Amino acid sequence: MHTRNDCVALDARDALAPLRAHFDLPEGVIYLDGNSLGARPKSALTRAEDVIVREWGTGLIRSWNSAGWFELPKRLGDRLAPLIGAHDGEVVVTDTTSINIFKALAAAVRIQAQNPSRSERRVLVTERSNFPTDVYMAQGLAGWLGRGYALRLVDSTADLRAAIDADTAVVMLTHVNYRTGYQHDMAALSAHAHAQGALIMWDLAHSAGAVPVDLHAHGADFAVGCTYKYLNGGPGAPAFIWVPKRHQAEFEQPLSGWWGHSEPFAMLPTFVPAQGIGRALCGTQPMLSLALVECGLDVFAHTSMEALRIKSLALSDLFIDLVEAHCGDQQLGLVTPRAHARRGSHVSFTHPHGYAVMKALIDRGVIGDYREPAIMRFGLTPLYTRFVDVWDAVDILKQTLCEQAYEIAAVRDAVT
Amino acid sequence: MHTRNDCVALDARDALAPLRAHFDLPEGVIYLDGNSLGARPKSALTRAEDVIVREWGTGLIRSWNSAGWFELPKRLGDRLAPLIGAHDGEVVVTDTTSINIFKALAAAVRIQAQNPSRSERRVLVTERSNFPTDVYMAQGLAGWLGRGYALRLVDSTADLRAAIDADTAVVMLTHVNYRTGYQHDMAALSAHAHAQGALIMWDLAHSAGAVPVDLHAHGADFAVGCTYKYLNGGPGAPAFIWVPKRHQAEFEQPLSGWWGHSEPFAMLPTFVPAQGIGRALCGTQPMLSLALVECGLDVFAHTSMEALRIKSLALSDLFIDLVEAHCGDQQLGLVTPRAHARRGSHVSFTHPHGYAVMKALIDRGVIGDYREPAIMRFGLTPLYTRFVDVWDAVDILKQTLCEQAYEIAAVRDAVT
Repeated sequence: MHTRNDCVALDARDALAPLRAHFDLPEGVIYLDGNSLGARPKSALTRAEDVIVREWGTGLIRSWNSAGWFELPKRLGDRLAPLIGAHDGEVVVTDTTSINIFKALAAAVRIQAQNPSRSERRVLVTERSNFPTDVYMAQGLAGWLGRGYALRLVDSTADLRAAIDADTAVVMLTHVNYRTGYQHDMAALSAHAHAQGALIMWDLAHSAGAVPVDLHAHGADFAVGCTYKYLNGGPGAPAFIWVPKRHQAEFEQPLSGWWGHSEPFAMLPTFVPAQGIGRALCGTQPMLSLALVECGLDVFAHTSMEALRIKSLALSDLFIDLVEAHCGDQQLGLVTPRAHARRGSHVSFTHPHGYAVMKALIDRGVIGDYREPAIMRFGLTPLYTRFVDVWDAVDILKQTLCEQAYEIAAVRDAVT
Repeated sequence: MHTRNDCVALDARDALAPLRAHFDLPEGVIYLDGNSLGARPKSALTRAEDVIVREWGTGLIRSWNSAGWFELPKRLGDRLAPLIGAHDGEVVVTDTTSINIFKALAAAVRIQAQNPSRSERRVLVTERSNFPTDVYMAQGLAGWLGRGYALRLVDSTADLRAAIDADTAVVMLTHVNYRTGYQHDMAALSAHAHAQGALIMWDLAHSAGAVPVDLHAHGADFAVGCTYKYLNGGPGAPAFIWVPKRHQAEFEQPLSGWWGHSEPFAMLPTFVPAQGIGRALCGTQPMLSLALVECGLDVFAHTSMEALRIKSLALSDLFIDLVEAHCGDQQLGLVTPRAHARRGSHVSFTHPHGYAVMKALIDRGVIGDYREPAIMRFGLTPLYTRFVDVWDAVDILKQTLCEQAYEIAAVRDAVT
């Protein structure tokens, strides 16, 4: 079994270890929640100062052109694209994941409705265990479309393939589950959806920057995702949406704001969607939060998703091994798959007092998070997590559990 | 007629003059575009550093609670409320104006559809001259609703009252027109819409922080608006939406994301809207851009909308008088109403070469902007515009026009 010194040695020979220096991480904290809010790139402060003082303060209105504000959603989309197997001109960073889900689902439903052989399909399929906002946005869309549109919530992953059938218009799945860390087989499920005549949209919230994704190779139709988790874009930073070129001409959705117009400054009284990915835009974007997304993306230029994946799996293997070795008698239940191909970049354990235990861990400087019901999540972000962090975190977990140093009655107040 | 020295004297006895010190304005620039992008409050840089270094960098995920991120849309909404005649718990700062238009229109349509005596109404009424994104979002909504829903574009303000009829479900108007600076009579039009059985939504993009607004007293049903113009929230800062308490229980809209759920962290598989204004939220907000909205709102605590309105009208009266006195023979056409009650806080003139003239003005340090067709806009923001700025701007306009110091063939590239 690994000792702490073994972990120190692993860090010493880790080629990715220098990447940690790109981030500002507080002293005395082991941060295992990059799956919820990524750490701060050191460059973010300088970039913000430049946007505020030079671009906003001095450039004022001129910065829409001179500082490239208006083009920023597309420019950042092109920078993000290689991390998810997308091409130039297929991604924009804009709005929220929820809003982008709505756009992609609405467009997908419309494409199916306009296909004579598929126009009777009225079912949207997702998992009951999907992240709530995905479910809620699909409910909002289906309820609002009326005319028999409905959301089918599948109770277990094992039943998913069978639930995609001749009534299915669109399948919407999150690639890596936010609670369990289970990673779907994107290629197999996309192929199955297509074989059944459905389109498929993937939510990459826990995938982008966390696991290799190849949207084109794996046959996805649409994708959305988050920049403030593994991409380290900053709290609530704008989300992204991917529309492959093959679907762009038919991509129409009801959030038809002026930024998605073919000539936004011609001030025409009729909406005409822009050619290309621009039609996935809607309104004016929050430039300061948007600009800082680039600081997170910059770090990825120093490595590859493949290298990050190798370290991510090494970290999560180590975490699982150490927890089972040191806390095996402590009512912890591993939820995350052991199979590498089915695992994301966080590891979850259940505990009967999971909320209280996580609260105690945070008080002791090990920051993970808690998700109902009973799940403690530990994000293992390869950009800045050290092997020795994993060792120390498990050591503190062990102490916390052995000493029962947690308040069972702790009131839930953690927010992520 | 006023001399430059008269203007210097007006500034010397202007009780609002000290407010300019709250803003960072570049040397050598007369900024008359606060109606498009407000100037930078000096406090914005300090606030951004605090959000980035302390809240994000050190607080990390804990800041959702400890720094009040999750409550920020409501807290800022409560701070903004007094500027528009709204009450606590009726405003959230969130998403974009376009998205908020969609929410409010969709909710208004639904309320009408559920009223047995109004359920057959299928027409949304607005002006063809409304800001394009308002028109486009309504087109998107109507097109997707189908079932006969349609947008009626009224060609002239004079025809507006007659266009609101027994078929009208919802009226959507922008209080102050973005091109002309014309200010609608909110009370009269709201009363007329209600008399016709319609609901009415007001876009306050060019009103909030610019002119006194009293949504409750003037009978509005819903409102949206912008924080990055007269409220000085920063480029593309999140917008706001107002839902009065009397409509909150029936306010339901299809963008039903997790932030609008009654228990967002219970992770329930069914959407249940939050009680109160929280149901107007959707997804996770861009915290850095959102936080800086407060820096703009802080400045308003030092004055009142009534005091600002008096100065705004004095500035725009002066501007109109000086332009007509000094440039009266220069093909300029006043578009903005002379009547105070019908005027917003910017003044627009047409010129056959308006785009080229504005470009030349910007090159000479007078920053206004241009809107198709042929309109030059000059924003007269009372928080930081001096009377002497107005004098100097008109002097430079006069020189530019007299010397014909503009390139008629200038290619349009101005973006706002």
